[in-house]
Amino acid sequence: MNEASGKLDSSPQPPVLGRPRSATAHQAMVDAAHDIVTKDGPLALTVQAICQAAGTSRASFYRRWSNAWQCFTESVDSFLLPPSMNDPTADTIDILVAATMNFYRYLSLRATKVRLGMILLDASAQPDMLVEAKKDTEARRAKLLKRIGDDVADGRIVVTIHHGVVVNIISGLALHAALMARPLPEKDVRAVLSRLIFPIDATA
Amino acid sequence: MNEASGKLDSSPQPPVLGRPRSATAHQAMVDAAHDIVTKDGPLALTVQAICQAAGTSRASFYRRWSNAWQCFTESVDSFLLPPSMNDPTADTIDILVAATMNFYRYLSLRATKVRLGMILLDASAQPDMLVEAKKDTEARRAKLLKRIGDDVADGRIVVTIHHGVVVNIISGLALHAALMARPLPEKDVRAVLSRLIFPIDATA
Repeated sequence: MNEASGKLDSSPQPPVLGRPRSATAHQAMVDAAHDIVTKDGPLALTVQAICQAAGTSRASFYRRWSNAWQCFTESVDSFLLPPSMNDPTADTIDILVAATMNFYRYLSLRATKVRLGMILLDASAQPDMLVEAKKDTEARRAKLLKRIGDDVADGRIVVTIHHGVVVNIISGLALHAALMARPLPEKDVRAVLSRLIFPIDATA
Repeated sequence: MNEASGKLDSSPQPPVLGRPRSATAHQAMVDAAHDIVTKDGPLALTVQAICQAAGTSRASFYRRWSNAWQCFTESVDSFLLPPSMNDPTADTIDILVAATMNFYRYLSLRATKVRLGMILLDASAQPDMLVEAKKDTEARRAKLLKRIGDDVADGRIVVTIHHGVVVNIISGLALHAALMARPLPEKDVRAVLSRLIFPIDATA
């Protein structure tokens, strides 16, 4: 993921016609999908709208994805999982707290609530939405589970409950707080995890 | 709540014309509201439909509630909170496990998902739904919190985390599993609660 994608200010240099067939174009489309859903709602998300906002061609889009939701899904993924996921020295609880807070912020977006509402109503207008929503949820879940499993295997932590239940708890806390429009204090999430996950002090 | 409402078999004796202005009529309307939403979806829930199904008059309905959702809310309440809530000798974890499983079953109903979907989409058609949904959720939450607080005050349990977080965890687990169409094993719920709530053995 290109860190310098610059959602808020995308042009420090003067704009050029078109964009290179590069990571920049890729990230521009992912960012555009995210912005469209956040600002105008999921129904506004079309391949045409994404390409127009990103300044890319439809050919460039279809080289990477087969529909608009696949592209949006990628923005969700980079939005939800904290960068520390890939840092083997990062603290497991810190990673899980960050992932929970990201998930909560994402679910609190009006665009996400509308999307979830449509999924619940079995929105037949956009069946892609259902398939993609399940797929990306499962993929993120698998990544979190892998990280917990790796840290247990490496002798860095002890987890006193099934790893899947840990992920269900933090997903549920984020979902419940967002849907009920309640606050989700980070310290509460950390307190819950600290009752289930115990770091092993390698220096002891 | 009338325990003998008998949703599955409501007439051991032969049916009589009309119903008395009694707990029976009250429960018949509550049951009717529940059946209508479960079978035909929330849009089918009207005062007329409730009265017709329950064999009661509109006057009888409006003596108790001001709209159809208020009546439905009452059915949800008796559906979600386990009867053991009111038994001071019942085990706290057993009560919370039962409440979680009830909530999960309720959320897994198609009618509930549709209702929740409409709430998320800010269904302007039925604003009552939003108000009632929040009110009844808060009321159930308060009852669970009171039970936990009472059991702590009575020296029956120790809770190692803020009581509200315990309720958020079990609500979140039920919500997450139902929305993702995942199973929610009762033993997982019990395992989570047993990491947070510790019974005090009065005989020790």
